[in-house]
Amino acid sequence: MSKVVASLQEAIRLCGLKDGMSISFHHHLRNGDYVLNMVMDEVSKLGIGELTINASSLFDVHLPLITHIQNRTVTKLCTDYVSAGIGRWISQGILQEPVEFRTHGGRPSDMLLGRTPVDIAFLAVPTSDTMGNCTGKVGKSACGSLGYAFPDAMCAKKVVVITDNLVDYPLQNWSIPETYVDYVVPVEAIGNPAGIVSGTTQITRDPVGLVMADLAAQVIRYSGLLKDGFSFQTGAGGASLAAAKFLKEIMVKEKIQGSFGLGGITGYLVEMLQAGCFQTLLDVQCFDLKAVESLRTNPRHQEISSIHYASPTAKSAVVDNLDVVILGATEIDVDFNVNVHTDSSGYLMGGSGGHSDTAAGAKLAMVIAPIVRARMPIVTDHVMCVSTPGRDIDVLVTEKGIAINPAQKQLKQRLSDAGLPVMDIAQLKQMAEKVTGIPRKVPRGDRVVANVIYRDGSLLDRVYNIP
Amino acid sequence: MSKVVASLQEAIRLCGLKDGMSISFHHHLRNGDYVLNMVMDEVSKLGIGELTINASSLFDVHLPLITHIQNRTVTKLCTDYVSAGIGRWISQGILQEPVEFRTHGGRPSDMLLGRTPVDIAFLAVPTSDTMGNCTGKVGKSACGSLGYAFPDAMCAKKVVVITDNLVDYPLQNWSIPETYVDYVVPVEAIGNPAGIVSGTTQITRDPVGLVMADLAAQVIRYSGLLKDGFSFQTGAGGASLAAAKFLKEIMVKEKIQGSFGLGGITGYLVEMLQAGCFQTLLDVQCFDLKAVESLRTNPRHQEISSIHYASPTAKSAVVDNLDVVILGATEIDVDFNVNVHTDSSGYLMGGSGGHSDTAAGAKLAMVIAPIVRARMPIVTDHVMCVSTPGRDIDVLVTEKGIAINPAQKQLKQRLSDAGLPVMDIAQLKQMAEKVTGIPRKVPRGDRVVANVIYRDGSLLDRVYNIP
Repeated sequence: MSKVVASLQEAIRLCGLKDGMSISFHHHLRNGDYVLNMVMDEVSKLGIGELTINASSLFDVHLPLITHIQNRTVTKLCTDYVSAGIGRWISQGILQEPVEFRTHGGRPSDMLLGRTPVDIAFLAVPTSDTMGNCTGKVGKSACGSLGYAFPDAMCAKKVVVITDNLVDYPLQNWSIPETYVDYVVPVEAIGNPAGIVSGTTQITRDPVGLVMADLAAQVIRYSGLLKDGFSFQTGAGGASLAAAKFLKEIMVKEKIQGSFGLGGITGYLVEMLQAGCFQTLLDVQCFDLKAVESLRTNPRHQEISSIHYASPTAKSAVVDNLDVVILGATEIDVDFNVNVHTDSSGYLMGGSGGHSDTAAGAKLAMVIAPIVRARMPIVTDHVMCVSTPGRDIDVLVTEKGIAINPAQKQLKQRLSDAGLPVMDIAQLKQMAEKVTGIPRKVPRGDRVVANVIYRDGSLLDRVYNIP
Repeated sequence: MSKVVASLQEAIRLCGLKDGMSISFHHHLRNGDYVLNMVMDEVSKLGIGELTINASSLFDVHLPLITHIQNRTVTKLCTDYVSAGIGRWISQGILQEPVEFRTHGGRPSDMLLGRTPVDIAFLAVPTSDTMGNCTGKVGKSACGSLGYAFPDAMCAKKVVVITDNLVDYPLQNWSIPETYVDYVVPVEAIGNPAGIVSGTTQITRDPVGLVMADLAAQVIRYSGLLKDGFSFQTGAGGASLAAAKFLKEIMVKEKIQGSFGLGGITGYLVEMLQAGCFQTLLDVQCFDLKAVESLRTNPRHQEISSIHYASPTAKSAVVDNLDVVILGATEIDVDFNVNVHTDSSGYLMGGSGGHSDTAAGAKLAMVIAPIVRARMPIVTDHVMCVSTPGRDIDVLVTEKGIAINPAQKQLKQRLSDAGLPVMDIAQLKQMAEKVTGIPRKVPRGDRVVANVIYRDGSLLDRVYNIP
């Protein structure tokens, strides 16, 4: 018995792809992914159209998708994130129907609840056996965790595994079991390793970034949360990584034994694991080779599905037990609402990812950003797009000082008592405006190009076209 | 955040148990299980009744259940297996509604398809964290695999984890994730280790058993299946284990590298793994301490869910790729239909378990039994109960000779060519009858006490009461 089929085209035919169906992709191969384009080329050749693509994220490597949108092979997108190149096209109004942006926890939740049915899931996997037991931990295109692919495998009517490392049955240490898989397609290469994971994610050397990182670590230190059992997530931005490095030094020095590091995992979190800062890493996505290697070899570094990571309708998810998360922002307003969807000109160039999931779950959700970026103040009166509601953001850390959400009175007291430069968020706005002047209002069109859907399925905000 | 509640009674109350609901249990603690009785005592105290119990198996340790049936706390049973003590009560007609017997693959299949909805699953687990990430691999009541508990966790509306080893969040190397769990109840002991797994499962020393075991190994050797990539399942009966031992000797001598050993795992399969006979063991249930230890420490020994093991409606299951399975029988008829539900007097004392699942999947399904047992011939004209249809049984091995299903012409030729004592199944029947005489027909009542439901959900046979 074997599920191996000779070509992608045959798998598509066997799955019965028809006009108007919904197909899904995960983003573990990031900007090195070949699979989405490979599938869409075949679909296009078959003359099938009016499709919905439900992708956990889209990167600029997927720019050929624009042609498929222009010729109406694809007429709707659901995604948690878009890179700037794809985002610009969406902002210019290439799709008639608004893009649906979800969060990394909301996407699996909506899939499992049947709100976003998927007809065929195409899973790019670095290693699979002939029956579809598969993993991202090994293979020439190893990406580590396949966390975001689990809901697709579990929910899609048909599931196609596409791999460049087909092995004998049964694969040991599968991530996704054969029970969910219909077909296995061996191909030459599922991605470009250089784009899948970076060799090492670089810590910032920028002095402004280092000041922010140091302040961020101090905020955590004095938050009352940094004690045995501490749990932590941070992004892969340079300043966030520097904050993790400073945090590690504090934890090692003070012999604090945390419980878990979470999220997209970098080598810096692996070093914290190795240094005894955490009991375990819970990994929904690997950002660099060190993370992939650690997931493969260290039993204390474990893969989790995006459901387990952040679904708001699971019986519980790891974000519910998170102490501290460090987050980015393109804008934050005086009510602490955060924008990570659009740039300062209003063009789409991001998305929630796990931003609002972790912010909702964490006891301390910290945004870290310089007060001025691209000659624009980071703090505004109203963000152009609410990606994460201000009620879930506890503190903004900038190089000039930190601002605390007024709802967090105890935290404000603690950080003030510790001598940290606590100020009003409006002060940070004014400081920036002294440098930049008061920014012009960005012109926006009257067409909705994207709906931002909160993790609970409600409409959080709309994004308009740029005329 | 924590899901820990102070008592089982509180968990039952929080789950909203009401008259007429369905509750489920798994059988990994086997005849050492305390949890089913513990739960039923609380349920009984609360005065709730007319319940359905859906258990993956029931053992004599669960005999207190009879009282709960007598006072109508429980009015329906679904199970894959009953031990003789429970079986006798059922055969005497204690339940008005017939017991539904399923297979180990059919049970999860029917649960996932919504045919047997479960309101509350009570999971006995040897180790859990405060959010319900749990495993059977560690803890004072370690039972190894929790394979049969997965569908209950995935499908039940409410899931209660009952554990005697509550650990800090997050547990490393969970089997069942918190995403499925509602409440965690710490108790003094979930079971009696002496009844959970045996120290060592004993190989037969009975000369008749050794003859059968040797013949069974020869059948496998000459079946054409014993080559690199070979896969194998056997039960924990003494002759089956002896067959595994003889098979191991052949494989080691002939340097045959099999792919996987499957099923309920004993130390004998662990030894085959260690000797290089298999690449991996796929473990739905551990039968002895050596299996538990191996599952905990050897990454090539892996836990599988009962869905992955045998579900006929999963996209595929491991049984679909199985080469050889060795099975038992209380009776086999001249059409190769096998009975594993009732004893020679017609009393229930078993059940399919994985019998018909593996028989359906395996390329070679072999039944091993002495021609006479308890002074009754093993071969009959018609089995009292069809547990596994004859079309799925390929060969019967006895100490007096082997009989091949007439549909397997090539196999018959191969084994005859190899000089093995191939005979007609009717000959084996006659041989036995010469010793025992022609057995009297067992009297049976006119009330159906059990329905045997095949793995696809269809009714395979009925079992009648014993008057």
